[in-house]
Amino acid sequence: MAELRFDPINRHTVVIAPERSKRPKDEFREKTAFSKKCPFCPGNEDQTPPENFSNGDNVNNWTIRSFPNKYPAFSQLDENGISGIQDIIVESDKHDINMGDFPLSHLKELFQVYKKRLESIKKNKTIKFILIFKNHGVMAGATLEHTHTQIVGLSFVPRQVEKTMQKLKKHFDEEKQCFYCRLAEQSTVIFENSSFVLISPREARFSYETWIVPKKHQMHYEEITDAQLADLSELISKQINTLNSMLDNPAFNIVLNNGLYNQDNNRFFHWNIQIIPRIYYQAGFELGTGTFINQVEPENAVLELKQNAL
Amino acid sequence: MAELRFDPINRHTVVIAPERSKRPKDEFREKTAFSKKCPFCPGNEDQTPPENFSNGDNVNNWTIRSFPNKYPAFSQLDENGISGIQDIIVESDKHDINMGDFPLSHLKELFQVYKKRLESIKKNKTIKFILIFKNHGVMAGATLEHTHTQIVGLSFVPRQVEKTMQKLKKHFDEEKQCFYCRLAEQSTVIFENSSFVLISPREARFSYETWIVPKKHQMHYEEITDAQLADLSELISKQINTLNSMLDNPAFNIVLNNGLYNQDNNRFFHWNIQIIPRIYYQAGFELGTGTFINQVEPENAVLELKQNAL
Repeated sequence: MAELRFDPINRHTVVIAPERSKRPKDEFREKTAFSKKCPFCPGNEDQTPPENFSNGDNVNNWTIRSFPNKYPAFSQLDENGISGIQDIIVESDKHDINMGDFPLSHLKELFQVYKKRLESIKKNKTIKFILIFKNHGVMAGATLEHTHTQIVGLSFVPRQVEKTMQKLKKHFDEEKQCFYCRLAEQSTVIFENSSFVLISPREARFSYETWIVPKKHQMHYEEITDAQLADLSELISKQINTLNSMLDNPAFNIVLNNGLYNQDNNRFFHWNIQIIPRIYYQAGFELGTGTFINQVEPENAVLELKQNAL
Repeated sequence: MAELRFDPINRHTVVIAPERSKRPKDEFREKTAFSKKCPFCPGNEDQTPPENFSNGDNVNNWTIRSFPNKYPAFSQLDENGISGIQDIIVESDKHDINMGDFPLSHLKELFQVYKKRLESIKKNKTIKFILIFKNHGVMAGATLEHTHTQIVGLSFVPRQVEKTMQKLKKHFDEEKQCFYCRLAEQSTVIFENSSFVLISPREARFSYETWIVPKKHQMHYEEITDAQLADLSELISKQINTLNSMLDNPAFNIVLNNGLYNQDNNRFFHWNIQIIPRIYYQAGFELGTGTFINQVEPENAVLELKQNAL
């Protein structure tokens, strides 16, 4: 029952999604390995919609599983002709584990699941845009603490993404080079391996915001190779642990920006991942001006992140 | 030492403001009438910069006072040629009072101070944009709990505001009517008095977001009359108390959108005030798409607010 509304004056887009207000909210507790009440914990599989992926061989013998979001902002096909697919990927069978504590092999398997789910969802030819993101901690918007990733597939391209794509195409046409390829080449690197660079853009909106950019020009995440999956796991594990140590286990978002689907050629796009610590709140100034306030100069964030890298 | 950066691709603006990370943060405590440690409490006037307004007859005999922000995002004139003025208005001598509990006469006096400060700041001919806003509660970005308002005057117009102004001018030119005058006439009214309507726009970004629009076309807040000041106090007091009762004393922002200064004619603008409860967090979806998720349909918010109005 989602309705999409665009404010022609302030140029922001809103999803009116009353259904989402009904979703349960955790009272965040002391750490526990298992929570009886948690719908994402093993044994409580009947509290979620039927799964569309599981790495286990029976219903509760799994370490990663995925299913449709029970409280979607977008329904499958609504009267406004907007269709959406919303999945939850439970990243671990352990209730209280932090992504930084995942064994690398488990993290790699999770990133392989991202690829599988994208390959499955994009078969739906009405889907034009798929966002994979993770909210960790209350300040990052998590309402359930059990570590999980969300996937949203939409039959339309959000306006801000559309504008970004136009800018990237213009850059590609004028400079004869992909914006992200250039960024990967020219930025001060915090960390790199064979497949990726970790950088902090000079226009970072949030303190210690970093971007992971593949060295190879790839439009869609699902082009990722097995070697890249291993390198991505190494890099994300390292960066989450560095942030956990520097900022005392902050809330954070992970946002995977991916190429569009079922659209004309968009070879000018280059998938990337943003890791965004959420250590303060957006306030009246941001609301009144649309301008972010970043309290840490990104050039200094780069230095600090390098010095503190684990 | 603020630096302004614009991301040409994602089209967001960032203020790089490392100084702000040094400002003190309250540990939010039980309610107290006075806090020894609070720099905004009477007796601690020496912990703030020298005041530029006080309604008292000596240094600590006041109920409203104002002074420059000790931890500004914008300094008075920096090497990038950006100048900014940032003031704090301490709204009350009582540490723990909620704006909803202000006597109407005190609220009116506060709104009179807004007018006085605007009249004073706009005399600086480098200032083009002045934002008055209030962050109440941690989730709304308040770092000090003693009730206060902030004023930011800038030598440039933030990009989003500039775009909004262009849209408003276009509306005025094409429709021969001010956008806000039409909004005030055509919206379902939650509450009104002789001077103002309280409405919730259909594109509201946040649940229970409301806008106060003067019935009379006024470009700048400081055109406000004495009768309007009384009506504004009545309306804001009523609405804050309604939200406090409905949403259990939520965090909220108040944003006063005002006409530009030292610019060409902008008669197409019409000042207005937004009251924005902050009851959930923006998460990965918002960051990845620039799209707000509002969990309460504004039409229903209007009904609920009318039913629960105090």
